[in-house]
Amino acid sequence: MHVISDTWFIAAQSSALRAKPLAVTIQGRPLVLFRSASGQATALTDRCPHRNVPLSMGVVRNGELECAYHGWRFDSAGTCVAVPGLVDGTVSLKSRCAETWATHEADGFVWVHSTPSVVPIAPPYVFSHVNDPAYTTVRRRFEVEASVHSVVENTLDVPHTAFLHGGLFRKAEKKNVIEVVVRRHPTFAEAEFIGEPRPTGLIGRLLAPRGGVVEHTDRFLLPSIAQVEYRLGEASHLLSTSVLTPISATRTVVYAVVTFRLPLPAWLVKPFVMPVAQRIFSQDAAVLSRQAEQFERFGGEKFTSTELDVLGPYVAKLLKQAASKEPAPEGVHEHRLKMKV
Amino acid sequence: MHVISDTWFIAAQSSALRAKPLAVTIQGRPLVLFRSASGQATALTDRCPHRNVPLSMGVVRNGELECAYHGWRFDSAGTCVAVPGLVDGTVSLKSRCAETWATHEADGFVWVHSTPSVVPIAPPYVFSHVNDPAYTTVRRRFEVEASVHSVVENTLDVPHTAFLHGGLFRKAEKKNVIEVVVRRHPTFAEAEFIGEPRPTGLIGRLLAPRGGVVEHTDRFLLPSIAQVEYRLGEASHLLSTSVLTPISATRTVVYAVVTFRLPLPAWLVKPFVMPVAQRIFSQDAAVLSRQAEQFERFGGEKFTSTELDVLGPYVAKLLKQAASKEPAPEGVHEHRLKMKV
Amino acid sequence: MHVISDTWFIAAQSSALRAKPLAVTIQGRPLVLFRSASGQATALTDRCPHRNVPLSMGVVRNGELECAYHGWRFDSAGTCVAVPGLVDGTVSLKSRCAETWATHEADGFVWVHSTPSVVPIAPPYVFSHVNDPAYTTVRRRFEVEASVHSVVENTLDVPHTAFLHGGLFRKAEKKNVIEVVVRRHPTFAEAEFIGEPRPTGLIGRLLAPRGGVVEHTDRFLLPSIAQVEYRLGEASHLLSTSVLTPISATRTVVYAVVTFRLPLPAWLVKPFVMPVAQRIFSQDAAVLSRQAEQFERFGGEKFTSTELDVLGPYVAKLLKQAASKEPAPEGVHEHRLKMKV
Repeated sequence: MHVISDTWFIAAQSSALRAKPLAVTIQGRPLVLFRSASGQATALTDRCPHRNVPLSMGVVRNGELECAYHGWRFDSAGTCVAVPGLVDGTVSLKSRCAETWATHEADGFVWVHSTPSVVPIAPPYVFSHVNDPAYTTVRRRFEVEASVHSVVENTLDVPHTAFLHGGLFRKAEKKNVIEVVVRRHPTFAEAEFIGEPRPTGLIGRLLAPRGGVVEHTDRFLLPSIAQVEYRLGEASHLLSTSVLTPISATRTVVYAVVTFRLPLPAWLVKPFVMPVAQRIFSQDAAVLSRQAEQFERFGGEKFTSTELDVLGPYVAKLLKQAASKEPAPEGVHEHRLKMKV
Repeated sequence: MHVISDTWFIAAQSSALRAKPLAVTIQGRPLVLFRSASGQATALTDRCPHRNVPLSMGVVRNGELECAYHGWRFDSAGTCVAVPGLVDGTVSLKSRCAETWATHEADGFVWVHSTPSVVPIAPPYVFSHVNDPAYTTVRRRFEVEASVHSVVENTLDVPHTAFLHGGLFRKAEKKNVIEVVVRRHPTFAEAEFIGEPRPTGLIGRLLAPRGGVVEHTDRFLLPSIAQVEYRLGEASHLLSTSVLTPISATRTVVYAVVTFRLPLPAWLVKPFVMPVAQRIFSQDAAVLSRQAEQFERFGGEKFTSTELDVLGPYVAKLLKQAASKEPAPEGVHEHRLKMKV
Repeated sequence: MHVISDTWFIAAQSSALRAKPLAVTIQGRPLVLFRSASGQATALTDRCPHRNVPLSMGVVRNGELECAYHGWRFDSAGTCVAVPGLVDGTVSLKSRCAETWATHEADGFVWVHSTPSVVPIAPPYVFSHVNDPAYTTVRRRFEVEASVHSVVENTLDVPHTAFLHGGLFRKAEKKNVIEVVVRRHPTFAEAEFIGEPRPTGLIGRLLAPRGGVVEHTDRFLLPSIAQVEYRLGEASHLLSTSVLTPISATRTVVYAVVTFRLPLPAWLVKPFVMPVAQRIFSQDAAVLSRQAEQFERFGGEKFTSTELDVLGPYVAKLLKQAASKEPAPEGVHEHRLKMKV
């Protein structure tokens, strides 16, 4: 797969990393996560330097990770601190170290840096409003058999909603012409939808009970964040941020963080919205895995885009730029188009 | 796989193609079949030009095929006739067309031409006697994990019947020496068995209750038709035509059409013959899939033939000639041999 | 896989080869075993020369193997002795012979030579004490998803026992320093453990109820024999010989022959030892299959050894030497080390 270096991906929810070591795969690299004695999340390459067994088969003892096969132990710096049975010589030789990956834990997620053995300069993405008491936040973890590119494009794509999710929140018979402003920045791209009517159907009625014009912006932020933002006057604000972790070229984990402030109480909204959101996700996951199969069957992808594919082509370009370490183009490119919704 | 172009294969039984689109694979190419408003069978490459999702996931609306993902619609010429949401520009651009494959529907089968985007000159094979009221016709569809070559050779092979199907219609102890005349024509080959006794066992008694000498001819017709013909005087005539569709190099669909006129009424014969035919087919399918596995395990095939393999080597040559587009050799080659049955 | 030629592997237990032909795979080569009329074990390549069907699908008739497809028959020399239906010409042509592999049956095992079509000079390995009435012998057959190298190293490795099999026969807290003498001979390697205390735990108490110093030697003998020998004075002697058959590069069959003479009666020892041995084997099999997966995930192995890996590196060198047909180095290399157990 095309590996993106010098960036951060979410490796796990904080709550999933407890006393046992946790095996995760990011960009094809098997890692093991564990907590040091002080509780700090640690990530090592999931391979014992001795006989290559996964360290995640082992146990954590006093904040050190012990291999299940011969009992070698590693501290949070990856240093080998025990070779049971050894009488002569130093234990902590460099050749016995496990490869380390920088971690950063915040707001319920353990992030791992995508380049091993470095001290990262910049911290990972910070979620907005998740600590604001006026907002309610819902988190979900999904797995999809598709590339990051396909999942991001799907998440930020407006026209498919009327068909794949027909009746759930947009309809096939399109009556309204809206304007879309698309901006390509050096490391992100966004589309602003102007004049979009209040969504019809169940979701629309819950989101904006008194009607009104929707402010709607979709964003893709490198390396793998898809964001959908809706505002409806002062009262309603919804920000859905999907942070994607590429497991392999065709498998992606989605960490979805939906933060909202609505005129209705959250306990009233959630029981209606959650099953619908789950059904939408299942429909998207199904079409995306079939799409990934098609690339396999036909020996690659062969897309024909229209101007309605407002962000997809930019997502592809930004991902390619990040994987190839090309310098980001300077300045902002903007164009406008009309779309029937 | 070795693709044969400019020919016809059966894609489906007519009865299998109804209101829903139907996914089929021929020579490794995924196709979608659907019926236009007039009921005409249509075949397109099973990939939406937009985001490559299988069109077979979609629905047929007024004889047009609508993609499940974004609702693009295609008519029976593969032309894109709808891009929902698009405001500016022409819908039916050439880059948005789906690749088409010519179809021909006759006698209960939908045939598809093996080269896309062409208007074929010659029609497909026509079945004999299927519309003759004096004949009864039985149709069956089977799938086998083997190449077209292996299935054809098996279907037209006489010596294996005494062993693989021991007791069902020929016996291991051979008492009769018969003569075989083998003829290789430019696009087909046939073997005529002279002096063959009335088959023993159950099938024999049903086929020729009064005994007599059998006229028996086996034929292979390019690209993939295996035919077995038996006559017994004026009263009995049986023509079994297996039209094979190569799904992949190691998977074949068999459309078997058995047409017969017998001294016994068909309703009396069928309950006895059908279970035996099913058992014979199961035994053949089992040995053929094991044979295909062997090619995989040993890195290819390595055959030793005897003169008893009367048609197999010609089948291989004809298939190779068709795949390589070599000109067919002129004239007819004939040779004779003796065989104990 | 790296094939070792001119040697012997166990193909099956004698008791597994009865009236039916038996399919086995050795170093990736599919073979069929059957018994001739005199009961002699015969091994042929498991592919009919005619249409390549596995001969193991067939039946044995009067000590000859009959192919299931067309009834060709082969004798114990691989000669084709029947082509049913053939009228003209000789049956037993050279091109119709099946490839043969020399066999040797002794002490309950059928061995097959690893080079086809040769008459071997040397016989296979002979088990010690299996026919001595003072000894009890237990035999077991296991399959492991790992290479011969990994299984042998695991079988002869001392330090892992305290961790992977923690509490079963060695403990993680190591108190005793012992000396190890390692000798590399031209076609085998061995490690002698001097000063090892009586094993603790259940096995220890059964093996040496009166305590004492253990004489313990581990050996690897080409091509694939791992041997563990324990003595405790005159009364106790245990010899565990694992003869490994490489099925493929990542699958190994272990034929374990444990022969022992103890101060306790065998009927008293076996009910205690067998479940423990089974549990140890399961733990080893689990870690070895995970290790084999790691080689796949990381694109190969990358080991860091310490002097505690007393035999593993020699096993690798001896296997490499055997596969590459390099001449064995002359003389004996010896070194000593200390180990905490």
